[in-house]
Amino acid sequence: MPKKYIDIDSLKYVLYDIHNLEDVLVNTRYEDHDIESLDLFLDSVKEFSDRELFPYFKEMDEQPAYYKDGAVIVHDQVKTLMQKGGEMGLISASFDYEDGGLQIPFLAHTAATYIMDAANNHLPGYAGLTQGAAELIIEFANQELKDTYVEKMASGQWGGSMCLTEPQAGSSLSDIVTKATPTDEGHYKINGQKIFISGGDYQHAENIVHLVLARIEGAPKGTKGISLFVVPKNRPTADGTLEYNDVMTVADFQKMGQRGYCTTHLGFGDTQDCRGWLVGEPNKGLKYMFLMMNAARIGVGRGASAIAMAAYRASLQYANERPQGRKLTGSGKKNPEEKQALIIEHPDVRRMLLLQKAVAEGSMSLVFLAAKYYDIIASTKDPKEKEKYHLLLEMIIPMVKTYPSEAGTASVNNGLQVLGGYGFCTDFILQQYYRDIRIFALYEGTTGIQSQDLLGRKVTMENGKGLELLSGEIMKVILEASKDETLKKYATTLGEKLQLTQQVLQHLLPFAKKGNYERYLADANLFMEHLSIVVVGWLWLEIAVDARKELKNEQRKYPEVFYESKVKTMRYFFAYEIPKTNALTESLMGNEEVTIKTAKEHII
Amino acid sequence: MPKKYIDIDSLKYVLYDIHNLEDVLVNTRYEDHDIESLDLFLDSVKEFSDRELFPYFKEMDEQPAYYKDGAVIVHDQVKTLMQKGGEMGLISASFDYEDGGLQIPFLAHTAATYIMDAANNHLPGYAGLTQGAAELIIEFANQELKDTYVEKMASGQWGGSMCLTEPQAGSSLSDIVTKATPTDEGHYKINGQKIFISGGDYQHAENIVHLVLARIEGAPKGTKGISLFVVPKNRPTADGTLEYNDVMTVADFQKMGQRGYCTTHLGFGDTQDCRGWLVGEPNKGLKYMFLMMNAARIGVGRGASAIAMAAYRASLQYANERPQGRKLTGSGKKNPEEKQALIIEHPDVRRMLLLQKAVAEGSMSLVFLAAKYYDIIASTKDPKEKEKYHLLLEMIIPMVKTYPSEAGTASVNNGLQVLGGYGFCTDFILQQYYRDIRIFALYEGTTGIQSQDLLGRKVTMENGKGLELLSGEIMKVILEASKDETLKKYATTLGEKLQLTQQVLQHLLPFAKKGNYERYLADANLFMEHLSIVVVGWLWLEIAVDARKELKNEQRKYPEVFYESKVKTMRYFFAYEIPKTNALTESLMGNEEVTIKTAKEHII
Repeated sequence: MPKKYIDIDSLKYVLYDIHNLEDVLVNTRYEDHDIESLDLFLDSVKEFSDRELFPYFKEMDEQPAYYKDGAVIVHDQVKTLMQKGGEMGLISASFDYEDGGLQIPFLAHTAATYIMDAANNHLPGYAGLTQGAAELIIEFANQELKDTYVEKMASGQWGGSMCLTEPQAGSSLSDIVTKATPTDEGHYKINGQKIFISGGDYQHAENIVHLVLARIEGAPKGTKGISLFVVPKNRPTADGTLEYNDVMTVADFQKMGQRGYCTTHLGFGDTQDCRGWLVGEPNKGLKYMFLMMNAARIGVGRGASAIAMAAYRASLQYANERPQGRKLTGSGKKNPEEKQALIIEHPDVRRMLLLQKAVAEGSMSLVFLAAKYYDIIASTKDPKEKEKYHLLLEMIIPMVKTYPSEAGTASVNNGLQVLGGYGFCTDFILQQYYRDIRIFALYEGTTGIQSQDLLGRKVTMENGKGLELLSGEIMKVILEASKDETLKKYATTLGEKLQLTQQVLQHLLPFAKKGNYERYLADANLFMEHLSIVVVGWLWLEIAVDARKELKNEQRKYPEVFYESKVKTMRYFFAYEIPKTNALTESLMGNEEVTIKTAKEHII
Repeated sequence: MPKKYIDIDSLKYVLYDIHNLEDVLVNTRYEDHDIESLDLFLDSVKEFSDRELFPYFKEMDEQPAYYKDGAVIVHDQVKTLMQKGGEMGLISASFDYEDGGLQIPFLAHTAATYIMDAANNHLPGYAGLTQGAAELIIEFANQELKDTYVEKMASGQWGGSMCLTEPQAGSSLSDIVTKATPTDEGHYKINGQKIFISGGDYQHAENIVHLVLARIEGAPKGTKGISLFVVPKNRPTADGTLEYNDVMTVADFQKMGQRGYCTTHLGFGDTQDCRGWLVGEPNKGLKYMFLMMNAARIGVGRGASAIAMAAYRASLQYANERPQGRKLTGSGKKNPEEKQALIIEHPDVRRMLLLQKAVAEGSMSLVFLAAKYYDIIASTKDPKEKEKYHLLLEMIIPMVKTYPSEAGTASVNNGLQVLGGYGFCTDFILQQYYRDIRIFALYEGTTGIQSQDLLGRKVTMENGKGLELLSGEIMKVILEASKDETLKKYATTLGEKLQLTQQVLQHLLPFAKKGNYERYLADANLFMEHLSIVVVGWLWLEIAVDARKELKNEQRKYPEVFYESKVKTMRYFFAYEIPKTNALTESLMGNEEVTIKTAKEHII
């Protein structure tokens, strides 16, 4: 195993110096916290991850979760994660005091979970879904449900899951058929099947609290007839004991990666004795679920970015230790009498490493930015500010979920290549990152779904206000960078690329206006890639602006080389990634309509 | 498992109608063959693959090759492949009659092996390396060695392997240290370690004949001091029995993919009793090996393309069977009352499928083109023609190896995405293709090595003659396509892209002329991608020209829809792939030199 899975300085730099966690703390919700206390929290999570997560990473892949006799058996470290993690507040830290939380900013919690994801991405999901399920109860359920469930979930004693997907519906939630039949006793009878349920069953939780989307009999078809229910695996009885609630574990999906994180198939009501309790009002289930979805999507982006980060550390260590071949320059030039060069000396290996660094740290900055917006929305008293950051968050969410997943997969692919043949061998960890990260472009809405959300809903919402606000934020950094002679040309380039985005939209929007949504959205994936590159280019320019200032500051926090490495990585991004917007623009502006006009009979 | 792993019509179309196998047959070497007999051969290989290869594909992944008690244990189907495949001539079919072969064209043999690779890429390598090792003996060894080894290898009774890589040297062959010490008995004593030896040991071959690169004591340093030896696992004695030759199997590398194809670590001469027999002259080992390397690299491209092809069939079948969501157009528009659409109806899914088809069939055409050049070189009596095709083959070889591997990996990635969450599950085959194909960018010289070969050697060889000839071939198709009103604009585009390539070279070549090879080659990978896209664009345009002609021909061989699908796929390639050359050109023409000027201290 490599020595490091994260450079904690780079994480803290983006957290404190780029996204200024301190700004978030001004709101009264966080008045009991300061940078020092949150820094201690992060250090304790890092220490916990070093000790309890990272050492089990390879083992959890080699000993995957499996189904046996109606139950899913997972690695013992899941118990440690839930218990000790629960004690440390890793499930509940961002909850309000009255719900047993610590009211720490979501941004600080995101940074902490990022560390855990980088250490071992098979584990944090168990806590994360428990947190998400508890939040749904806190936010929308009645007091009785809250009293029954939240405390035990926050402590990690009970797990939680989100049950959306059904075999016949997949991403199309309007087609779910799980049935909820009212009874006279206040609960509903639940019948149905749910698949791909992460953390849906494991031997280490005494109970699992499922948040289930279902249709009450007679509800409207489509997404407007979906309600949300609390459906525990075991229902608490009046005397405090647990009684089996007819939630059957049918199977555990075996996967190519993230094999320590179980993915279950659940059956509800096989013997007609599965009870569910309605959360909030009927037919508002999808609305409630989607209010939590932004946090879930930030979580997916965070996980993918963290894997890309850990893979970068592993490739970097190898490249600094492995001698092979000779430099093409200087005295060593292809001379077999000279000793071999470290592979990091070869420009092509440097290109792959810089790609990894640019994607890992760039996507981390994007994820933290979203978490910061999330905090501002949750805590500001100013309705205008709330509205502004709400639109900004909605605008970037699909990219926050997708860019780390897609570019992260590409960067880990390059990271594996750095190791040559060893990268493909199970003795080295890169192949595990390569397999693990591949799920992220599928989780919580595939790249296709996210891209339709970005172009179809977000770009057009409130007459383009979200994109206008985002462009405004980008322009601020462009203006600032323009004042620095060294950064000026990058600022100019970024401005040009932002104009390209506008040209693309001027080409596409008329189709939407004419009601031709198929045409408007046909290349949404390419638009996603285009805008994401512009956005991450902006975030790298933002980092470079700060780094250049610090290089002139004698009181700088980190050594000179730290800041120089940031400026170099920005330059990499502008030399190799930003130009891709040209190709994407050419495809987006094309009028071939080949994916629309090619009938399925012609795809043979 | 999906029903099909290849569309045999598409393979035969490219083989017979695009690359005109008949043209090759005019040479006297092939005078005993005609299209009918070769077609029967292909059909028998298809039938063999249906029966003996494809059904074991998943099982070989689930029951990988492993090391036990000094031996490597592989799946029993390896025995069937070697024995029945040997009988069918799959190892020796392209050898001369005098060497026990059938003198079939390499192109026909390549097409046959393509079918096998698509059916089960874990198996054909055992036969392929035996063939390659036997060819080295046939070509360069003395009669005694030929008499001892070739027949048993051709029949599949004995296996063969190529032993190049050593732990300390990796891709840098000039650093190999395996030692050959002359004796008075005509053989050498061999001492050393070889790693990553495909098919290096398995229980089903009575003997394995290793072709080993080693240094004779006192030989010059670097690549000029490397000799080639035949080193059998068991040496044949005078009485016809076999005697252990001190070739120890140290381990079998466990891999992320292609797990049924063993990858061994071998130790030679642990007890000082390993004998090797020199092939040809001393210090010419690398030259001999590289004369075989073109065929090996065509083989790698072939395997990757075949996996991309099989993955396409699997994704296509799923997309035609899986209903999900509704079309954004017509009466079904997001209406939950309507039944769900097949996912192939969604433009984004079509885009991914067309990408798969474009890469699979385009790369197949590239591989077959190389095989055709190979045949012409081997059989023509005209020295000018030989020289021309030699240069053309040398020019395209790095792309033939790399494009199917890199674009194939990307296309399988999209193919997995077509299946959504199921794509990540081991119950579906896409994840296996995803893992299997990843090795191809590493085999036989990584993408980095191939790219340096392309830009560093091939573009500059004989003062640019190879690229000039290649451009000439491309121009022929551009001219032909220009005569068709429908194809004219694609012809124009391709011509422009070819000019872009020239611009890039005008920018880069001065660095080489000034001796700054590091700068010249720093972005060789990007140049590789750029030129490969132009080349595959050319091959798609060539297909479209033919298909358009056949659409006007009432005697056409295949149904109209077959030819239309080819034209549509060409249009896909020009709409989505060709534009990437713009971005690559911008990066290649940049002057940031970021991978050169970023010191390793700045990559942290």
